[in-house]
Amino acid sequence: MPPNTLSPGPEQQCPIVRSVARVGDWWSILILRDACYGLSRFDEFQKSLGIAPTMLTRRLAALVKDGLLQRWRYSERPPRNEYVLTESGRDFQPVIWSLLAWGNKHFAPEGESVVVIDAETGERADPVLVDRATGRPLARPAFRTAAGPAANPRIRTRYAQKGANP
Amino acid sequence: MPPNTLSPGPEQQCPIVRSVARVGDWWSILILRDACYGLSRFDEFQKSLGIAPTMLTRRLAALVKDGLLQRWRYSERPPRNEYVLTESGRDFQPVIWSLLAWGNKHFAPEGESVVVIDAETGERADPVLVDRATGRPLARPAFRTAAGPAANPRIRTRYAQKGANP
Repeated sequence: MPPNTLSPGPEQQCPIVRSVARVGDWWSILILRDACYGLSRFDEFQKSLGIAPTMLTRRLAALVKDGLLQRWRYSERPPRNEYVLTESGRDFQPVIWSLLAWGNKHFAPEGESVVVIDAETGERADPVLVDRATGRPLARPAFRTAAGPAANPRIRTRYAQKGANP
Repeated sequence: MPPNTLSPGPEQQCPIVRSVARVGDWWSILILRDACYGLSRFDEFQKSLGIAPTMLTRRLAALVKDGLLQRWRYSERPPRNEYVLTESGRDFQPVIWSLLAWGNKHFAPEGESVVVIDAETGERADPVLVDRATGRPLARPAFRTAAGPAANPRIRTRYAQKGANP
């Protein structure tokens, strides 16, 4: 799917839309997964993902353009680039670990093949999304999505219509 | 991107891959967003997303096939289907809210347009991914990804190579 099918402009204010416009294809998500893991070179990504070089070039360029990866040249001859996560790219890690937890829970009948661990102790972590202040797990119907302070009329209408829904 | 570009079989054991194979395109993610929000009918999704009917039909069928939505006929004449989240579909909500938090943090210069709130009090929640037992926020380098008990040799090798990386 071409990256420009979704155009998150002022008319498209939903933060979920803005996020998926940047990472809404699996190659981007898997490249970020690998970058979070420590891979940085073209051939490392290619070997890890088994992705066609032209596709990888395109996806890396889009991630650089969207500010999730930074490119820098580590060799002039031959010309070689490295791709390093920016702050917003690093902040994608919780999304990746949310996908991991969801995959482990529902699509891993043989057991967990990849887990999150405490880097020091090696102890298993069990990822759960909570409210930072209260520690309560974020789930419906106790929590819901609503229009925020900067919402435009379209968003306000949207959440007013079904706002009371679980 | 056709849904069959990634084929998560036994050789593709990573739970992140298995997850994105099911939701690795933005239409699927946005359909699940809308379903979590309470939409269930074809024309509701279409109106919300501005998606072409043929694409919507295709994406709904894939989500039903993958067990994230359940289809049931609420009218025989005319024939009309409703799409309701299954348990695994409902469990996708934290991923959506992780995407929301990430979008709000990095791609909403004008402020937050959509937020998560306590359904009863209306108070803002601040989504953060933590370890369930200890409540510690899951971030590198304190936490990292590692091979789990069911990992096959390929996954083990992968995480052995760069396992100590931050």
